[in-house]
Amino acid sequence: MITLYTDSSPNGFKITIALEELGLTYHLRHVNIDQGENRSPAFLRLNPHGRIPVLVDESNGITLFESAAILLYLADISGQLLPVEPAKRWEAIQWLMFHAASVGPVMGQRVHFELFAADKIPQAISRYRRLMDEAFTTLDNRLAEHPYLAGDEYSIADIAQFGWTHIAQVIDFDFSTYKHLSAWYQRIGARPAVQRGIALPTRATGA
Amino acid sequence: MITLYTDSSPNGFKITIALEELGLTYHLRHVNIDQGENRSPAFLRLNPHGRIPVLVDESNGITLFESAAILLYLADISGQLLPVEPAKRWEAIQWLMFHAASVGPVMGQRVHFELFAADKIPQAISRYRRLMDEAFTTLDNRLAEHPYLAGDEYSIADIAQFGWTHIAQVIDFDFSTYKHLSAWYQRIGARPAVQRGIALPTRATGA
Ligand SMILES: N[C@@H](CCC(=O)N[C@@H](CS)C(=O)NCC(=O)O)C(=O)O
Ligand SMILES: N[C@@H](CCC(=O)N[C@@H](CS)C(=O)NCC(=O)O)C(=O)O
Repeated sequence: MITLYTDSSPNGFKITIALEELGLTYHLRHVNIDQGENRSPAFLRLNPHGRIPVLVDESNGITLFESAAILLYLADISGQLLPVEPAKRWEAIQWLMFHAASVGPVMGQRVHFELFAADKIPQAISRYRRLMDEAFTTLDNRLAEHPYLAGDEYSIADIAQFGWTHIAQVIDFDFSTYKHLSAWYQRIGARPAVQRGIALPTRATGA
Repeated sequence: MITLYTDSSPNGFKITIALEELGLTYHLRHVNIDQGENRSPAFLRLNPHGRIPVLVDESNGITLFESAAILLYLADISGQLLPVEPAKRWEAIQWLMFHAASVGPVMGQRVHFELFAADKIPQAISRYRRLMDEAFTTLDNRLAEHPYLAGDEYSIADIAQFGWTHIAQVIDFDFSTYKHLSAWYQRIGARPAVQRGIALPTRATGA
């Protein structure tokens, strides 16, 4: 049995979506970040860095944090959501890493400076708008030529990018000018497993 | 034959180190970021996002950007630098992802606001100092209990983290108070392959 520790947030949705896609049974544990539950001693034993998501696979005792590591793990144990053919598989892993290292962190910084920071600092706001624009342009160009980030197969690369794109939509970071990314967002968002995943543990409100 | 497109920079050193550790023969192509070579049409065909490193494996036509994807690929084709036993292997992948998504991007933002930005913005500087401190504390605690990030085996998780730690050292982001991380830095840095890797294509100067 798998246990997922998560909250209603971009990195958390990646894993609820993947688990729903795979049809795996799992326990869902809501770790309320607003109430600081991610810094409790019990949670820090699962992830010393105090962030969600964390996945525990009770069948073998493996405990993992970092959403990209968890997605790779779920693809590995299920044999799904990653192409099998090596060239395609590495392309998928590349786009998963692109999301994890080059898109997610940029969007996180934009959210901080635009929504959460006490002082509104124009240079920081414009920096992360520009970097997000650059990343979304790269994704849009990719999706102009392929239905999915990995090429013609839906994969954990799409799921990872969807998690954060969904939050962009919830908090009104407009991305409608990226036509191919927007169409991809609608297409992925229509999947029943994705619909279920973004409602777990509760829907995101952007607050 | 492998070709690596790189510059003297944190994400580049990860790959020169890995290739040197593996003893693979490869062509080295210096992409000079200061001269904008990473935005040339020829380079954008390799990585549409215009960043180094990029690895091309001519034996199978696979072209990869994103340093973490390249490290996973090199571990895969060589059967080295990642533990074989599943629990240990996933632990290594987790720490590789921790570096790629949670440490590297934070250090990159600190470098920007502290060294490169025209205006020195106290809130941004202190934000990234604090986030880097948090990440280095997590790494230091890990290395208090294990000689390497993955546990008792040297792996691509260490190589990835070393690339950015080396730059911290070059540009005087002092990390001497993190005793275990500092000792690990010395230990990894003493490896002949690491010594060679950080001098390719040239040494970092921090300028
Ligand atoms: N790179 C990590 C990021 C994890 C992360 O930042 N999670 C957020 C929620 S989306 C969190 O737990 N934040 C709480 C905090 O920073 O205290 C991943 O992909 O899992
Ligand atoms: N997440 C990427 C980051 C790549 C990256 O930012 N590379 C830097 C050099 S360390 C670069 O090419 N910068 C040039 C630019 O931003 O224009 C990776 O790990 O490969």
